Amino acid sequence: MKKIAVILSGCGVYDGSEIHEATLSLYALSKNEVGYECFAPDKEQFHVINHYTGEVTNEKRNVLVEAARIARGKIKPLSELNVKDFDGVLLPGGYGAAKNLSTYAIDGENYKVDELVAEKLKDFHAAKKPIAALCIAPMIVAKVIGGIITIGNDKNTALIAEKQGAKHVNKNYDEVAIDEVNKIVTTPCYMLADTIYKTAVGIESAVEAMLGLIK
Amino acid sequence: MKKIAVILSGCGVYDGSEIHEATLSLYALSKNEVGYECFAPDKEQFHVINHYTGEVTNEKRNVLVEAARIARGKIKPLSELNVKDFDGVLLPGGYGAAKNLSTYAIDGENYKVDELVAEKLKDFHAAKKPIAALCIAPMIVAKVIGGIITIGNDKNTALIAEKQGAKHVNKNYDEVAIDEVNKIVTTPCYMLADTIYKTAVGIESAVEAMLGLIK
Repeated sequence: MKKIAVILSGCGVYDGSEIHEATLSLYALSKNEVGYECFAPDKEQFHVINHYTGEVTNEKRNVLVEAARIARGKIKPLSELNVKDFDGVLLPGGYGAAKNLSTYAIDGENYKVDELVAEKLKDFHAAKKPIAALCIAPMIVAKVIGGIITIGNDKNTALIAEKQGAKHVNKNYDEVAIDEVNKIVTTPCYMLADTIYKTAVGIESAVEAMLGLIK
Repeated sequence: MKKIAVILSGCGVYDGSEIHEATLSLYALSKNEVGYECFAPDKEQFHVINHYTGEVTNEKRNVLVEAARIARGKIKPLSELNVKDFDGVLLPGGYGAAKNLSTYAIDGENYKVDELVAEKLKDFHAAKKPIAALCIAPMIVAKVIGGIITIGNDKNTALIAEKQGAKHVNKNYDEVAIDEVNKIVTTPCYMLADTIYKTAVGIESAVEAMLGLIK
């Protein structure tokens, strides 16, 4: 059975992993009879957003502990992710990708990627195993690997991706950008989708494309 | 367009709504071109569980505020749910259904249902609009409405449901109990499913059965 590592960034669109994208990724893997394990950095979230009011709270929450909610408790610290045990890696979106896995939401074009996340992605790339990234998470791939990616069609975001050395291609919610050389699969999800169904369509296509890139 | 109210109970299987069940419910509704709005009681959670360690923490979290994570911020207090605006109501599972929407996880056979939740379910029942409940949430329906329900095949839980005046029928993860008289649809989900795909199969069947019961 093929097995994919899923890197989560918390639990909730505004300060962690986008829950629908993460759940529908696990669903698409399971539907394709592919196994998965979830991982997340064991560190404090950049901040906590009250998702009802939209306001920043004064709480402290841990990325791994909150991501465990999406994983039903079955999750490991990202430090324990060994590329040898997996056929590919998938990063759902949500602001957690841009606040906890990278600093894109805070620093814009001067953003950095979490060192451990960068290290793991480089491992997969070096092993010629596919990397799938959804929504805003392709900005992490743009910085660490480069290659062909999509974040939908936002000009400013696309320009920043290109400044990192990536080539950006515009794609709609139901389309997938596939970089066969670098084995990178990306799709816009909630960057463009206005329903959960439309988000799922992109994810199912991305997962299928990713599985097609496994040797 | 038909429209379903979804009552959430927090965000995370051990102290709130089971995230996969809630997300896949929204997905199944969206896939069937049915609209939805999310609601949750505006009250403190029974407790907060660290989903990585499984331990109770000393945090305080609000059911509505946490449920907003699943709803991407688009959620209303349960007090604002008006049966006239909807064609049916759906309750995902997770311990939140048994800790926040009812006291089943704490009080066992002497459990109570949150008064507002009970009031809203009675409104839907009186209006002959379908009620769908997943996983352990059918115990709420058993107490408030009675009727034919399933929570899978656990004998003790089934016995307690019957003490409330419901009739329990054993069902597998891919089956749905349908009470056509009371318009109640229930399916076991993670009470029996051992993968997210199997959970989705039950939910898609339950949503289709629910839509079939709308006048």
